[in-house]
Amino acid sequence: MHLNRETLQALKTIVGADAVLTDANDLVVYSVDGTTHCQGNAEVVVFPTDVDQISRVMQLSDQNDIPVTVRGAGTSLSGGPVPMAGGIVLCTSRMNRILEINGEDFTVKAQVGVVLNDLNQVLARQNLFFPPDPQSLLAATLGGCVSENAGGPYAVKYGVFRHYLLGMTAVLPSGAVVTLGGNTMKNVTGYDLPQIVCGAEGTLAVISDVTLRLLPKPQASRTVLAIFDRVVTAGQAVHQVRASGVIPAKIELMDNWVVRRIEENLPLGIPLSAEAILLFELDGNAESVQQETEAVIRLCQAAGASEVRAARDAAETADFWTARRMGFSAVFSASPTVLAEDVTVPTHRIADQIVHTQKLARDLDLTIAIIGHAGDGNLHPCILTDKADAAHYARAQRAADEIFDAALGFGGAISGEHGIGLEKQRFLKKAMSPEAISLLKGIKRAFDPKGLLNPGKIWEPS
Amino acid sequence: MHLNRETLQALKTIVGADAVLTDANDLVVYSVDGTTHCQGNAEVVVFPTDVDQISRVMQLSDQNDIPVTVRGAGTSLSGGPVPMAGGIVLCTSRMNRILEINGEDFTVKAQVGVVLNDLNQVLARQNLFFPPDPQSLLAATLGGCVSENAGGPYAVKYGVFRHYLLGMTAVLPSGAVVTLGGNTMKNVTGYDLPQIVCGAEGTLAVISDVTLRLLPKPQASRTVLAIFDRVVTAGQAVHQVRASGVIPAKIELMDNWVVRRIEENLPLGIPLSAEAILLFELDGNAESVQQETEAVIRLCQAAGASEVRAARDAAETADFWTARRMGFSAVFSASPTVLAEDVTVPTHRIADQIVHTQKLARDLDLTIAIIGHAGDGNLHPCILTDKADAAHYARAQRAADEIFDAALGFGGAISGEHGIGLEKQRFLKKAMSPEAISLLKGIKRAFDPKGLLNPGKIWEPS
Repeated sequence: MHLNRETLQALKTIVGADAVLTDANDLVVYSVDGTTHCQGNAEVVVFPTDVDQISRVMQLSDQNDIPVTVRGAGTSLSGGPVPMAGGIVLCTSRMNRILEINGEDFTVKAQVGVVLNDLNQVLARQNLFFPPDPQSLLAATLGGCVSENAGGPYAVKYGVFRHYLLGMTAVLPSGAVVTLGGNTMKNVTGYDLPQIVCGAEGTLAVISDVTLRLLPKPQASRTVLAIFDRVVTAGQAVHQVRASGVIPAKIELMDNWVVRRIEENLPLGIPLSAEAILLFELDGNAESVQQETEAVIRLCQAAGASEVRAARDAAETADFWTARRMGFSAVFSASPTVLAEDVTVPTHRIADQIVHTQKLARDLDLTIAIIGHAGDGNLHPCILTDKADAAHYARAQRAADEIFDAALGFGGAISGEHGIGLEKQRFLKKAMSPEAISLLKGIKRAFDPKGLLNPGKIWEPS
Repeated sequence: MHLNRETLQALKTIVGADAVLTDANDLVVYSVDGTTHCQGNAEVVVFPTDVDQISRVMQLSDQNDIPVTVRGAGTSLSGGPVPMAGGIVLCTSRMNRILEINGEDFTVKAQVGVVLNDLNQVLARQNLFFPPDPQSLLAATLGGCVSENAGGPYAVKYGVFRHYLLGMTAVLPSGAVVTLGGNTMKNVTGYDLPQIVCGAEGTLAVISDVTLRLLPKPQASRTVLAIFDRVVTAGQAVHQVRASGVIPAKIELMDNWVVRRIEENLPLGIPLSAEAILLFELDGNAESVQQETEAVIRLCQAAGASEVRAARDAAETADFWTARRMGFSAVFSASPTVLAEDVTVPTHRIADQIVHTQKLARDLDLTIAIIGHAGDGNLHPCILTDKADAAHYARAQRAADEIFDAALGFGGAISGEHGIGLEKQRFLKKAMSPEAISLLKGIKRAFDPKGLLNPGKIWEPS
């Protein structure tokens, strides 16, 4: 236990008594994340509303050596916000104000607890567009997205959170409030500190607000569904489209397992024998969208698609994308434990990685559903298992190991957008040399010399 | 002196005797950069050809406490590659091999000494496109561009070097060779070390090769020249174009001083009374370029341009862009010393910043030419002065100070793409808090505990 009556009282003074949770039932909720199988031990949860309160919480932590773990909506799929060393969970859900939308500069400044979808809705009314779209966007907060450098389907054309981050206000573990970066499109003032905090999984600083770059909303968009008997053919279609010079806004791939779930829940008339489907979104001005839609249809047909359909109207477009989200959700209701992996390979190795995963599933007698952002090589093989069944879970873990090894062997990475957290900690050594891991630790020391912020993450405790 | 007969001999053994310069005349050349007024004191220049040679040079440096400063083509405009502590200048010009172009994955891996324009020419033949385009691209190397996080006109639509950097091989000051990042579009494996080394101005590690993301070459492009009696009107035109949803690939602004130089050297028939001209480039598929060209012409006219012309053909397009480059070159031949500044402001403050600079020039009796990347708020006010004329140079320095203050006051940054180097060191305190500067120093220690790599840069020596 890191907290005593006095420090608890101090927290209540800082954030208000109604913004402090200590009931055991509440603490359980704030000790897990979207992985469902990573379990921490929060001692208290606090809900600050501004940077000053965060600063005072961090000073208390610093003075009393109390670990702090920051949490947004807890949708992380790598254990990032799970409090492994007890102490304080600092939940940002009340930091939910959009501070400024500047339509002239195409920037938004918002507190980190703002939910991505809420921001998107406000922006849409002003004809503005923030592309990165992790599929947890209905709940995920900006702070979590920045901390994990979240991506999503739009990444293939528009990049990930990192590419839109201009600046932030953050609180160091000492309690010092710092402004990092700024609000201009270009800025090379010293090392790019916002880019270091972005993707650091909450281990370096507590972000209070972020300034993000926006785009004008594209004039038009169109969705194309392409159905393939064989997954290798789908891989070839992706290649042909990219080689043609068309840059789709999204290229999503779903495998046969997902196709079957779609047909059970929201039938689109996809043959149950289809090994894979691709969903393309084309966007831009109306003429170019029309042209590119025709090009994608032609290229998919030429590559060997069994059927290609452009969405007829807004309703069908919505159906196609609901199917995509629903397919991913189906994974999580299909078994008690899911290892939702997140490997990335060079795009020309996607089919190889999928074929390898399919063989692995057969060899180990496992169900592994595959959804992927095919345009940027980021695949989510989801291993359906049950932590309570030791033998099954051991096979699932072995499959995860082999999936990581295969991705690295194909020249890829062990995480594309979910982060390392706890989930992939033991694989970090495979992906990075000891010297590179030493650099991570050195950077951690520069920000957090006492190691009190989100301890026990990314690299294995030594 | 850090070098003796023995260490010099060791360097010759590592890189070969013909790849070591010690003649005083040679050393002078490698002790300056594009600023022309920053002066260092190289003791020896070495030209390694591969990562192993770099590693051995760094081991020698580490063992004998010899400072090392890395240099590409020396086109930096902030003093970045100027060797302030003597020792070894490690010049990358012989590291000039393109290692792999992967047209399927849209990536290129190249040694850092490859000149950007040489890369562009090879890519163009394969219909590939690497957008970041610092105007030193005829000489600038990839290593220098990554180290300074270089931008250029294309940044308004396509971003800067950072946005295309996937991975690198680098040598730490200890001599350890590390692979940082990878070659996939998405990667969240630990803190993003390539993003830290990018823009670090050669102070953290010696980059050996980089892996960059590419795009397919846009199908078509068109250039539009718009002429304005008043600079404020030009600012309004930029705003109107951006607000319309059109994202030009480039929006360049030149002031009256530059217009006069253009009309002297490559007459385009621009009235000498024009306070500003804008050059737009629209790119994409042919139909959308045509539409957007018409939209930009209409919007500039509506904003009050005195004349707007779309380039008729490839020759006129080339003339317009030659004029842009020539205008910037003219600055450097117009006076013995030029303070080529590089402030960035939120785009809606561009006109304010320009008006402020013009008043400053009048008040201090100085000539300040302004060229800028108007689409992203990055302005280059170039103060024409002479370091030998102490009074004049003092006024020029005062103008630079006030330009920086104004940019920060407008919510901007003191450097958009040139870096801090030596040039803006004394202004860093204005742009960053002491706590943030401490973070920079902590990161430096994590990479370079002995402080031997490019000493004396970014922050003021304490």
